[in-house]
Amino acid sequence: MKIVLVGATGTIGTKVFQNLSERHEVIPVSLRSTEIRADITSKESIIEMFRQVGPFDALISATGNGEFAPLDEITEEQFYTGIRSKMMGQINLALLAQKYINENGSITLTSGILADDPIRGGVSLSVVNSAINAFAMAAAVELKRGIRINAISPGIVENSVSAIGHFFPGHNPVPMDRVVNAYLKSVEGVVTGQVIRVV
Amino acid sequence: MKIVLVGATGTIGTKVFQNLSERHEVIPVSLRSTEIRADITSKESIIEMFRQVGPFDALISATGNGEFAPLDEITEEQFYTGIRSKMMGQINLALLAQKYINENGSITLTSGILADDPIRGGVSLSVVNSAINAFAMAAAVELKRGIRINAISPGIVENSVSAIGHFFPGHNPVPMDRVVNAYLKSVEGVVTGQVIRVV
Repeated sequence: MKIVLVGATGTIGTKVFQNLSERHEVIPVSLRSTEIRADITSKESIIEMFRQVGPFDALISATGNGEFAPLDEITEEQFYTGIRSKMMGQINLALLAQKYINENGSITLTSGILADDPIRGGVSLSVVNSAINAFAMAAAVELKRGIRINAISPGIVENSVSAIGHFFPGHNPVPMDRVVNAYLKSVEGVVTGQVIRVV
Repeated sequence: MKIVLVGATGTIGTKVFQNLSERHEVIPVSLRSTEIRADITSKESIIEMFRQVGPFDALISATGNGEFAPLDEITEEQFYTGIRSKMMGQINLALLAQKYINENGSITLTSGILADDPIRGGVSLSVVNSAINAFAMAAAVELKRGIRINAISPGIVENSVSAIGHFFPGHNPVPMDRVVNAYLKSVEGVVTGQVIRVV
Protein backbone atom coordinates (compact mmCIF):
# COMPACT_ATOMS: atom_id res chain seq x y z
CA MET A 1 0.00 0.00 0.00
CA LYS A 2 1.03 3.60 -0.49
CA ILE A 3 0.24 5.41 2.76
CA VAL A 4 0.33 9.16 3.42
CA LEU A 5 1.19 9.80 7.08
CA VAL A 6 0.52 13.37 8.18
CA GLY A 7 2.18 14.11 11.49
CA ALA A 8 4.95 11.62 10.76
CA THR A 9 7.44 13.26 13.11
CA GLY A 10 5.18 13.41 16.18
CA THR A 11 5.14 11.15 19.25
CA ILE A 12 2.64 8.75 17.69
CA GLY A 13 3.54 9.38 14.03
CA THR A 14 7.16 8.33 14.52
CA LYS A 15 6.13 4.92 15.86
CA VAL A 16 3.43 4.42 13.23
CA PHE A 17 5.96 5.28 10.52
CA GLN A 18 8.49 2.76 11.84
CA ASN A 19 5.96 -0.05 11.92
CA LEU A 20 4.13 0.58 8.64
CA SER A 21 7.34 1.22 6.69
CA GLU A 22 8.27 -2.42 7.18
CA ARG A 23 5.44 -3.51 4.90
CA HIS A 24 4.27 -0.42 2.96
CA GLU A 25 5.43 2.62 1.07
CA VAL A 26 4.85 5.35 3.65
CA ILE A 27 5.10 9.01 2.65
CA PRO A 28 5.93 11.03 5.75
CA VAL A 29 4.35 14.49 5.90
CA SER A 30 4.84 17.16 8.55
CA LEU A 31 4.68 20.91 8.92
CA ARG A 32 8.42 21.52 8.54
CA SER A 33 10.76 18.55 8.73
CA THR A 34 9.87 16.22 5.85
CA GLU A 35 10.39 16.41 2.10
CA ILE A 36 6.64 16.76 1.53
CA ARG A 37 5.06 19.25 3.90
CA ALA A 38 1.55 20.37 4.79
CA ASP A 39 -0.09 22.91 7.05
CA ILE A 40 -3.42 21.26 7.88
CA THR A 41 -4.99 24.60 8.80
CA SER A 42 -4.71 25.58 5.12
CA LYS A 43 -6.86 23.88 2.48
CA GLU A 44 -4.47 25.06 -0.23
CA SER A 45 -1.51 23.51 1.56
CA ILE A 46 -3.36 20.18 1.88
CA ILE A 47 -4.28 20.18 -1.83
CA GLU A 48 -0.68 20.93 -2.79
CA MET A 49 0.48 18.06 -0.56
CA PHE A 50 -1.93 15.59 -2.22
CA ARG A 51 -0.77 16.79 -5.66
CA GLN A 52 2.85 16.11 -4.74
CA VAL A 53 2.01 12.70 -3.28
CA GLY A 54 0.01 11.44 -6.26
CA PRO A 55 -2.41 8.48 -5.98
CA PHE A 56 -2.38 6.71 -2.62
CA ASP A 57 -4.25 3.99 -0.73
CA ALA A 58 -4.40 5.26 2.84
CA LEU A 59 -4.27 8.55 4.68
CA ILE A 60 -3.28 8.60 8.32
CA SER A 61 -3.48 11.83 10.29
CA ALA A 62 -1.74 11.90 13.67
CA THR A 63 -1.52 15.63 14.02
CA GLY A 64 -3.27 18.77 15.20
CA ASN A 65 -3.22 20.67 18.45
CA GLY A 66 -5.50 22.52 20.86
CA GLU A 67 -5.21 24.64 23.99
CA PHE A 68 -5.52 23.63 27.61
CA ALA A 69 -7.08 26.24 29.93
CA PRO A 70 -9.38 26.28 32.97
CA LEU A 71 -13.10 26.54 32.16
CA ASP A 72 -13.47 29.87 33.95
CA GLU A 73 -10.59 31.41 31.98
CA ILE A 74 -10.74 29.79 28.55
CA THR A 75 -11.56 32.16 25.70
CA GLU A 76 -13.41 31.67 22.45
CA GLU A 77 -10.09 32.20 20.64
CA GLN A 78 -8.47 29.39 22.62
CA PHE A 79 -11.29 27.06 21.53
CA TYR A 80 -10.69 28.10 17.92
CA THR A 81 -7.03 27.02 18.11
CA GLY A 82 -8.17 23.42 18.43
CA ILE A 83 -11.11 23.89 16.06
CA ARG A 84 -8.87 25.20 13.27
CA SER A 85 -6.02 22.73 13.86
CA LYS A 86 -6.91 19.33 15.31
CA MET A 87 -10.63 19.43 14.41
CA MET A 88 -11.12 21.19 11.06
CA GLY A 89 -7.52 20.52 10.02
CA GLN A 90 -8.16 16.79 10.17
CA ILE A 91 -11.69 17.12 8.78
CA ASN A 92 -10.31 19.09 5.83
CA LEU A 93 -7.66 16.41 5.30
CA ALA A 94 -10.43 13.81 5.12
CA LEU A 95 -12.78 15.91 2.94
CA LEU A 96 -10.00 16.49 0.43
CA ALA A 97 -8.57 12.95 0.68
CA GLN A 98 -11.90 11.47 -0.49
CA LYS A 99 -11.20 13.07 -3.88
CA TYR A 100 -7.55 11.97 -4.25
CA ILE A 101 -7.49 8.55 -2.55
CA ASN A 102 -7.67 5.27 -4.50
CA GLU A 103 -10.77 3.07 -4.54
CA ASN A 104 -11.17 1.06 -1.31
CA GLY A 105 -8.71 3.37 0.42
CA SER A 106 -8.84 4.24 4.10
CA ILE A 107 -8.70 7.45 6.10
CA THR A 108 -7.56 7.37 9.74
CA LEU A 109 -7.83 10.41 11.99
CA THR A 110 -6.67 10.91 15.58
CA SER A 111 -8.86 12.13 18.44
CA GLY A 112 -8.13 11.26 22.07
CA ILE A 113 -9.46 10.03 25.40
CA LEU A 114 -10.67 13.47 26.53
CA ALA A 115 -13.67 12.95 24.26
CA ASP A 116 -14.95 10.46 26.84
CA ASP A 117 -13.01 11.16 30.00
CA PRO A 118 -12.54 14.82 30.93
CA ILE A 119 -9.64 16.35 32.83
CA ARG A 120 -9.24 19.75 34.48
CA GLY A 121 -8.42 22.35 31.83
CA GLY A 122 -9.19 19.97 28.98
CA VAL A 123 -12.62 21.20 27.89
CA SER A 124 -11.57 22.42 24.44
CA LEU A 125 -9.82 19.13 23.70
CA SER A 126 -12.85 17.16 24.90
CA VAL A 127 -14.93 19.13 22.40
CA VAL A 128 -12.45 18.80 19.53
CA ASN A 129 -11.79 15.08 20.06
CA SER A 130 -15.49 14.32 20.26
CA ALA A 131 -16.10 16.26 17.06
CA ILE A 132 -13.46 14.15 15.27
CA ASN A 133 -15.05 10.92 16.52
CA ALA A 134 -18.46 12.07 15.28
CA PHE A 135 -17.00 13.06 11.91
CA ALA A 136 -15.60 9.54 11.40
CA MET A 137 -18.94 7.97 12.33
CA ALA A 138 -20.97 10.26 10.08
CA ALA A 139 -18.57 10.45 7.14
CA ALA A 140 -18.34 6.64 6.95
CA VAL A 141 -21.98 6.32 5.89
CA GLU A 142 -21.51 8.68 2.95
CA LEU A 143 -18.04 7.82 1.61
CA LYS A 144 -18.10 6.36 -1.89
CA ARG A 145 -15.81 4.00 -3.89
CA GLY A 146 -15.38 1.69 -0.88
CA ILE A 147 -13.44 4.29 1.08
CA ARG A 148 -13.33 3.70 4.83
CA ILE A 149 -12.74 6.11 7.72
CA ASN A 150 -11.98 5.63 11.42
CA ALA A 151 -10.79 7.72 14.35
CA ILE A 152 -8.13 6.50 16.77
CA SER A 153 -8.79 7.72 20.31
CA PRO A 154 -5.73 7.03 22.46
CA GLY A 155 -5.40 7.60 26.17
CA ILE A 156 -2.28 9.37 27.32
CA VAL A 157 0.54 7.50 25.58
CA GLU A 158 3.51 6.32 27.61
CA ASN A 159 5.93 8.50 25.65
CA SER A 160 4.00 11.65 26.66
CA VAL A 161 3.76 10.92 30.38
CA SER A 162 6.87 12.84 31.41
CA ALA A 163 5.75 15.96 29.53
CA ILE A 164 1.99 16.09 30.27
CA GLY A 165 1.18 13.17 32.57
CA HIS A 166 0.54 15.45 35.55
CA PHE A 167 -2.54 16.83 33.74
CA PHE A 168 -4.00 13.29 33.62
CA PRO A 169 -4.17 12.10 37.25
CA GLY A 170 -4.98 8.41 37.48
CA HIS A 171 -4.95 7.85 33.74
CA ASN A 172 -3.13 4.65 32.80
CA PRO A 173 -0.36 5.32 30.26
CA VAL A 174 -0.99 3.42 27.04
CA PRO A 175 1.92 1.37 25.63
CA MET A 176 3.00 2.68 22.21
CA ASP A 177 2.65 -0.74 20.57
CA ARG A 178 -1.05 -0.82 21.46
CA VAL A 179 -1.47 2.65 19.93
CA VAL A 180 0.33 1.59 16.76
CA ASN A 181 -1.90 -1.49 16.57
CA ALA A 182 -4.98 0.73 16.44
CA TYR A 183 -3.65 2.45 13.31
CA LEU A 184 -2.83 -0.95 11.78
CA LYS A 185 -6.38 -2.10 12.49
CA SER A 186 -7.80 0.92 10.71
CA VAL A 187 -5.43 0.78 7.71
CA GLU A 188 -4.93 -2.95 7.17
CA GLY A 189 -8.26 -4.10 8.63
CA VAL A 190 -11.84 -3.73 7.42
CA VAL A 191 -13.72 -1.58 9.94
CA THR A 192 -15.25 1.78 9.08
CA GLY A 193 -17.07 4.49 11.00
CA GLN A 194 -15.42 3.29 14.20
CA VAL A 195 -13.84 5.11 17.09
CA ILE A 196 -10.95 2.80 17.98
CA ARG A 197 -10.26 3.52 21.63
CA VAL A 198 -6.83 2.64 23.01
CA VAL A 199 -6.86 2.77 26.79
CA MET B 1 -36.64 30.44 39.48
CA LYS B 2 -35.65 33.10 37.02
CA ILE B 3 -34.85 31.33 33.75
CA VAL B 4 -33.26 32.81 30.62
CA LEU B 5 -34.50 30.95 27.55
CA VAL B 6 -32.44 31.65 24.42
CA GLY B 7 -34.26 30.48 21.32
CA ALA B 8 -37.62 31.08 22.94
CA THR B 9 -39.46 31.45 19.63
CA GLY B 10 -38.19 28.24 18.01
CA THR B 11 -39.95 24.89 17.59
CA ILE B 12 -38.65 23.57 20.90
CA GLY B 13 -38.26 26.93 22.68
CA THR B 14 -41.94 27.80 22.26
CA LYS B 15 -43.04 24.62 24.04
CA VAL B 16 -40.40 24.92 26.76
CA PHE B 17 -41.50 28.52 27.36
CA GLN B 18 -45.17 27.52 27.70
CA ASN B 19 -44.42 24.82 30.21
CA LEU B 20 -41.81 26.58 32.37
CA SER B 21 -43.77 29.85 32.47
CA GLU B 22 -46.45 28.12 34.52
CA ARG B 23 -44.04 27.80 37.46
CA HIS B 24 -41.14 30.18 36.84
CA GLU B 25 -40.21 33.65 35.67
CA VAL B 26 -38.99 32.91 32.15
CA ILE B 27 -37.17 35.61 30.15
CA PRO B 28 -37.60 34.83 26.45
CA VAL B 29 -34.61 35.72 24.25
CA SER B 30 -34.33 35.42 20.49
CA LEU B 31 -32.44 36.98 17.62
CA ARG B 32 -35.22 39.38 16.58
CA SER B 33 -38.66 38.88 18.02
CA THR B 34 -38.40 39.30 21.80
CA GLU B 35 -37.88 42.31 24.03
CA ILE B 36 -34.43 41.06 25.02
CA ARG B 37 -32.43 39.89 22.04
CA ALA B 38 -29.11 38.12 21.46
CA ASP B 39 -27.04 37.00 18.53
CA ILE B 40 -25.23 33.96 19.93
CA THR B 41 -22.47 34.24 17.30
CA SER B 42 -21.39 37.49 18.99
CA LYS B 43 -19.81 37.46 22.45
CA GLU B 44 -20.61 41.17 22.86
CA SER B 45 -24.28 40.52 22.08
CA ILE B 46 -24.41 37.70 24.66
CA ILE B 47 -22.79 39.89 27.34
CA GLU B 48 -25.24 42.72 26.61
CA MET B 49 -28.12 40.24 26.92
CA PHE B 50 -26.92 38.99 30.32
CA ARG B 51 -26.53 42.61 31.48
CA GLN B 52 -30.12 43.37 30.53
CA VAL B 53 -31.41 40.19 32.17
CA GLY B 54 -29.65 40.69 35.51
CA PRO B 55 -29.11 37.82 37.98
CA PHE B 56 -30.77 34.54 37.00
CA ASP B 57 -30.96 30.90 38.09
CA ALA B 58 -31.02 28.93 34.87
CA LEU B 59 -29.96 29.36 31.28
CA ILE B 60 -31.60 27.28 28.58
CA SER B 61 -30.31 27.43 25.03
CA ALA B 62 -32.51 25.91 22.35
CA THR B 63 -30.97 27.65 19.40
CA GLY B 64 -28.23 27.57 16.79
CA ASN B 65 -28.08 26.24 13.27
CA GLY B 66 -25.83 24.36 10.88
CA GLU B 67 -25.76 23.35 7.22
CA PHE B 68 -26.81 20.10 5.60
CA ALA B 69 -24.76 19.04 2.57
CA PRO B 70 -23.50 15.77 1.06
CA LEU B 71 -20.06 14.67 2.25
CA ASP B 72 -18.53 14.91 -1.23
CA GLU B 73 -19.76 18.49 -1.67
CA ILE B 74 -19.64 20.05 1.79
CA THR B 75 -17.14 22.88 2.19
CA GLU B 76 -15.07 24.04 5.11
CA GLU B 77 -17.18 27.19 5.18
CA GLN B 78 -20.39 25.14 5.51
CA PHE B 79 -18.88 23.38 8.52
CA TYR B 80 -18.06 26.76 10.03
CA THR B 81 -21.71 27.86 9.85
CA GLY B 82 -22.57 25.24 12.47
CA ILE B 83 -19.32 25.75 14.38
CA ARG B 84 -19.93 29.48 14.78
CA SER B 85 -23.67 29.19 15.50
CA LYS B 86 -24.91 25.99 17.15
CA MET B 87 -21.52 24.88 18.54
CA MET B 88 -19.47 27.92 19.61
CA GLY B 89 -22.61 30.07 19.96
CA GLN B 90 -23.91 27.76 22.66
CA ILE B 91 -20.46 27.20 24.16
CA ASN B 92 -19.99 30.97 24.39
CA LEU B 93 -23.41 31.27 26.05
CA ALA B 94 -22.29 28.74 28.66
CA LEU B 95 -18.79 30.20 29.15
CA LEU B 96 -20.29 33.64 29.77
CA ALA B 97 -23.27 32.35 31.79
CA GLN B 98 -20.90 30.83 34.39
CA LYS B 99 -19.95 34.39 35.35
CA TYR B 100 -23.48 35.84 35.53
CA ILE B 101 -25.59 32.94 36.82
CA ASN B 102 -26.59 32.58 40.48
CA GLU B 103 -25.05 29.99 42.79
CA ASN B 104 -26.42 26.47 42.16
CA GLY B 105 -27.74 27.60 38.81
CA SER B 106 -28.06 25.36 35.77
CA ILE B 107 -27.07 25.64 32.13
CA THR B 108 -28.90 23.57 29.52
CA LEU B 109 -27.71 23.37 25.91
CA THR B 110 -29.27 21.65 22.91
CA SER B 111 -27.49 19.17 20.65
CA GLY B 112 -29.36 16.49 18.69
CA ILE B 113 -29.58 12.86 17.65
CA LEU B 114 -27.16 13.22 14.72
CA ALA B 115 -24.36 13.11 17.30
CA ASP B 116 -25.09 9.40 17.64
CA ASP B 117 -27.12 8.45 14.61
CA PRO B 118 -25.94 9.86 11.27
CA ILE B 119 -28.09 10.70 8.26
CA ARG B 120 -27.14 11.44 4.65
CA GLY B 121 -25.96 15.04 4.37
CA GLY B 122 -25.81 15.49 8.14
CA VAL B 123 -22.08 15.23 8.78
CA SER B 124 -21.56 18.81 9.96
CA LEU B 125 -24.49 18.51 12.39
CA SER B 126 -23.15 15.19 13.69
CA VAL B 127 -19.87 16.96 14.42
CA VAL B 128 -21.46 20.03 16.00
CA ASN B 129 -23.95 18.09 18.14
CA SER B 130 -21.25 15.76 19.41
CA ALA B 131 -19.06 18.73 20.28
CA ILE B 132 -21.89 20.21 22.37
CA ASN B 133 -22.40 16.90 24.20
CA ALA B 134 -18.68 16.72 25.00
CA PHE B 135 -18.68 20.32 26.20
CA ALA B 136 -21.44 19.57 28.71
CA MET B 137 -19.61 16.49 29.97
CA ALA B 138 -16.26 18.27 30.30
CA ALA B 139 -17.53 21.64 31.58
CA ALA B 140 -19.52 19.94 34.35
CA VAL B 141 -16.38 18.77 36.13
CA GLU B 142 -14.95 22.29 36.30
CA LEU B 143 -17.97 24.49 36.99
CA LYS B 144 -17.86 26.21 40.38
CA ARG B 145 -20.45 27.54 42.86
CA GLY B 146 -22.64 24.44 42.39
CA ILE B 147 -23.47 25.31 38.80
CA ARG B 148 -24.70 22.39 36.71
CA ILE B 149 -24.69 21.84 32.94
CA ASN B 150 -26.41 19.34 30.65
CA ALA B 151 -27.06 18.89 26.95
CA ILE B 152 -30.45 17.84 25.59
CA SER B 153 -30.12 15.63 22.52
CA PRO B 154 -33.53 15.23 20.90
CA GLY B 155 -34.38 13.05 17.95
CA ILE B 156 -36.43 14.65 15.21
CA VAL B 157 -39.29 16.32 17.04
CA GLU B 158 -42.84 15.72 15.85
CA ASN B 159 -43.37 19.40 15.06
CA SER B 160 -40.45 19.34 12.59
CA VAL B 161 -41.45 16.21 10.68
CA SER B 162 -43.39 17.97 7.94
CA ALA B 163 -40.49 20.33 7.22
CA ILE B 164 -37.43 18.07 7.50
CA GLY B 165 -38.69 14.54 8.25
CA HIS B 166 -37.74 13.28 4.79
CA PHE B 167 -34.05 13.76 5.70
CA PHE B 168 -34.50 11.34 8.63
CA PRO B 169 -35.77 8.06 7.10
CA GLY B 170 -36.93 5.63 9.77
CA HIS B 171 -36.38 8.02 12.64
CA ASN B 172 -39.25 7.97 15.11
CA PRO B 173 -40.67 11.45 15.69
CA VAL B 174 -40.32 12.47 19.33
CA PRO B 175 -43.45 13.85 21.06
CA MET B 176 -42.97 17.46 22.14
CA ASP B 177 -43.95 16.72 25.74
CA ARG B 178 -41.05 14.25 26.05
CA VAL B 179 -38.68 16.89 24.70
CA VAL B 180 -39.99 19.49 27.14
CA ASN B 181 -39.55 16.96 29.97
CA ALA B 182 -35.84 16.68 29.18
CA TYR B 183 -35.42 20.43 29.73
CA LEU B 184 -37.41 20.20 32.99
CA LYS B 185 -35.13 17.37 34.14
CA SER B 186 -32.06 19.50 33.51
CA VAL B 187 -33.45 22.71 35.04
CA GLU B 188 -35.57 21.44 37.95
CA GLY B 189 -33.64 18.21 38.56
CA VAL B 190 -30.16 17.52 39.92
CA VAL B 191 -28.12 15.89 37.16
CA THR B 192 -24.99 17.47 35.70
CA GLY B 193 -22.59 16.60 32.89
CA GLN B 194 -25.30 14.51 31.25
CA VAL B 195 -26.41 14.15 27.67
CA ILE B 196 -30.15 13.74 28.07
CA ARG B 197 -31.21 11.85 24.97
CA VAL B 198 -34.86 12.09 23.89
CA VAL B 199 -35.62 9.46 21.29
